[in-house]
Amino acid sequence: MDIREFVEANAAEFAAALQEWLAIPSVSADPARHGDVRRSAEWLAAYLGKTGFPVADVWETAGLPAVYAHWPADGEDAPHVLVYGHHDVQPAELADGWDYEPFEPAERDGKIYGRGASDDKGQVLFHALGVRACLAASGATAPPVSITMLIEGEEESGSPNFAGLLTDRRDRLRPDVIVVSDTTMWAADVPSICTGTRGLVDAEITLTGPSHDLHSGSFGGGVPNPLHALAALLAGLHDADGRVTLPGFYDDVIPLSDAERDLLARLPFGEREWLTGAGDSGATYGEAGYTTLERIWARPTAEVNGVWGGHTGPGPKTIIPGQAHAKVSFRLVAAQEPAAVITSLREYIKTFTPNGLVATVTAGHGVRPCRSPIDSPAVAATRRAMERAFGREVLFTREGGSGPEADLAGILGAPLAFLAVGLDADRIHAPNEYVDLSRLLRGAEAAAYLWGELAAGAGTDPW
Amino acid sequence: MDIREFVEANAAEFAAALQEWLAIPSVSADPARHGDVRRSAEWLAAYLGKTGFPVADVWETAGLPAVYAHWPADGEDAPHVLVYGHHDVQPAELADGWDYEPFEPAERDGKIYGRGASDDKGQVLFHALGVRACLAASGATAPPVSITMLIEGEEESGSPNFAGLLTDRRDRLRPDVIVVSDTTMWAADVPSICTGTRGLVDAEITLTGPSHDLHSGSFGGGVPNPLHALAALLAGLHDADGRVTLPGFYDDVIPLSDAERDLLARLPFGEREWLTGAGDSGATYGEAGYTTLERIWARPTAEVNGVWGGHTGPGPKTIIPGQAHAKVSFRLVAAQEPAAVITSLREYIKTFTPNGLVATVTAGHGVRPCRSPIDSPAVAATRRAMERAFGREVLFTREGGSGPEADLAGILGAPLAFLAVGLDADRIHAPNEYVDLSRLLRGAEAAAYLWGELAAGAGTDPW
Repeated sequence: MDIREFVEANAAEFAAALQEWLAIPSVSADPARHGDVRRSAEWLAAYLGKTGFPVADVWETAGLPAVYAHWPADGEDAPHVLVYGHHDVQPAELADGWDYEPFEPAERDGKIYGRGASDDKGQVLFHALGVRACLAASGATAPPVSITMLIEGEEESGSPNFAGLLTDRRDRLRPDVIVVSDTTMWAADVPSICTGTRGLVDAEITLTGPSHDLHSGSFGGGVPNPLHALAALLAGLHDADGRVTLPGFYDDVIPLSDAERDLLARLPFGEREWLTGAGDSGATYGEAGYTTLERIWARPTAEVNGVWGGHTGPGPKTIIPGQAHAKVSFRLVAAQEPAAVITSLREYIKTFTPNGLVATVTAGHGVRPCRSPIDSPAVAATRRAMERAFGREVLFTREGGSGPEADLAGILGAPLAFLAVGLDADRIHAPNEYVDLSRLLRGAEAAAYLWGELAAGAGTDPW
Repeated sequence: MDIREFVEANAAEFAAALQEWLAIPSVSADPARHGDVRRSAEWLAAYLGKTGFPVADVWETAGLPAVYAHWPADGEDAPHVLVYGHHDVQPAELADGWDYEPFEPAERDGKIYGRGASDDKGQVLFHALGVRACLAASGATAPPVSITMLIEGEEESGSPNFAGLLTDRRDRLRPDVIVVSDTTMWAADVPSICTGTRGLVDAEITLTGPSHDLHSGSFGGGVPNPLHALAALLAGLHDADGRVTLPGFYDDVIPLSDAERDLLARLPFGEREWLTGAGDSGATYGEAGYTTLERIWARPTAEVNGVWGGHTGPGPKTIIPGQAHAKVSFRLVAAQEPAAVITSLREYIKTFTPNGLVATVTAGHGVRPCRSPIDSPAVAATRRAMERAFGREVLFTREGGSGPEADLAGILGAPLAFLAVGLDADRIHAPNEYVDLSRLLRGAEAAAYLWGELAAGAGTDPW
């Protein structure tokens, strides 16, 4: 029985197990559900144990529990692969607009419905099916690579304790490759691999002028207005080409290679549809010289997230306000450092705040960007595995958002590869989340192929 | 008995009458005090009748009542002077920080304390003393000019019905000169005359982008951000020299003459003290090539009064907001028209709003600026009268704020002259308002001289 035959033969059992797991409302953001998050971890550890993982434990953190499972390869020299995913889910209530109870999963017409079906329980569980298929096809009792599953319980809450867990357990984990199964493909008929996520850092800027709001008749035109100055500072964050003006902002950006740009350009992108999805935005906009996909995935940004100051109630009030406030954030790409961006922001604000006003900048810690180069051996192996599973060329995407991947790569010191079969169309983070069972089965198949591909490459590929 | 002797001889009676009037809490902004505003009008009409005005009536408006009093000159050819002031006062409560009950006036050490002492009851009432002094000194039974007192009851509420009253009564009023007694002098020892007030027009700008806030990870860098665009629009309202960039904004500005600039420059201006009064502002700022006094009095401005949009609560929220809002206002100088400024603002916003965003501009009606040139015969006569009363050179100021003066001049078709003895130090619009009795007496004296000066100039001076 080959890998595909095994996967298809076990599809019903896999679908049933997934639905059992989806019935556990493991919402990490809701303290009332924290017991369910623990039940979810216990369910997964038990299931992976039944799958055959010799070790399958719940790992405590300073917050909600993760799951650790390990299945060593027979040979000492086999590469060690760590699979990352998460077992907590986004909040979901029938009243949010669901057509059915979000934690009463069901299978209809080849689709599995329920919160977490795609993000991320379905994509975690296909690994359990994949490793069994791999063994069934080879007849071996151990996988060709050592496999560690590390499945977090707080990803939907910003992974507040995950870096700490990785640091504490670094010596035990020591992977050669990290496989992340928590992203999306371009489309069901356009399988693709994510090759990077953006980082993020935020700051709040306050400009203080007069000790109280001044009458604009008595003082207007004679003293600096904090809202004028703030507008100028925010407007000055971009030049006429839409580039961020902070000194040195682009110094650490690893530019897209021609090969990456060519591959991104091959994704079938419909601007009109994309704008519809962008809240019916009236036009695209951004850094000159880049396509929309490059702008949202592979280029850093500065965004103004909020501004307030002065009179914001009904009617006019002719004042010069005492203070002006803005919240800004920056999406970062490899190898930008959040702290360096904040240093540059502070310098910019200091330089351009007019005489007579006082500026303060309060910054968050930030999330670092990550990058998984298309020419890395791990990515090449993942692409071969995906192409075998899907039977067609696999393209490359990136993610514009930010996650714990940079911490994984940075703390564990291993390269990343993204193996995932989710879609934006799966309504992740929205009502009526679902996933195509057939896609999860292709994911299981791709995972099974990947262990073989990685084992075959070991010794020749420098991870 | 000359004018000064009469004024001094009647000072005690004048001070007692003023305190009687100040005890009426004529707060136009407080509906609970509207009965008191009417009582105040009735008190004044009765007092002016006792003073000798042959006509002294309460004039109804669409809102709170005004007082009209008229005392014709003997000769048909005597000029007709209309005196403008107001009998309503700013709100005042002990709890606001007053050291005594604001409507229980008192005289101590030559000062009269109470809400309205300076703004504007004291300055209205000195005219009653002035006209009696004028008659006492000349021995005549009628003043040398026909005098109309038109004392508004809604000035502290923005004069909402005053233009309507003027329009309705235009044919009856028909003054040759309008004397406004509702401003301030530079200092008790630097008597001065106001020569203009700024106009005002306000607008609210809204930029609309996506139909809902977008995730900046998914869309950041790819669609226009309304807060970015608003910041650029607001920042672009001024150039590097602090000049307003709206097309044609300065076209109708009547520039300061060299003589006006020289006279303004002679006012003893202390920048440090002025900054302290400006809420401890850290520095002056404004249009290049002008002094602070010129900037706040004689130059037009654009001010951002309020801005809001996006996330303004605690913590970060990485969104591209759906909307951004700003309230702006423009102080105007003669002969700028509020409507023309708004037309220009609309054009500016339309031209510079990025593709993909929709801008709306909602504007108020505005208040026109007014100007009382230093070389006009009415101002020259006022200056002579003030110099006789104060015994020293009288300088010129302007007011940066906005009032009904442009309506008076525009609707009644007569030139303005400002005769007032208030001071910023009188704590007008603040707790513990007071006025020096001696200053009010100088005001009465100046008014008495003014009627003679205007009568003497009649026939030769083209008003």
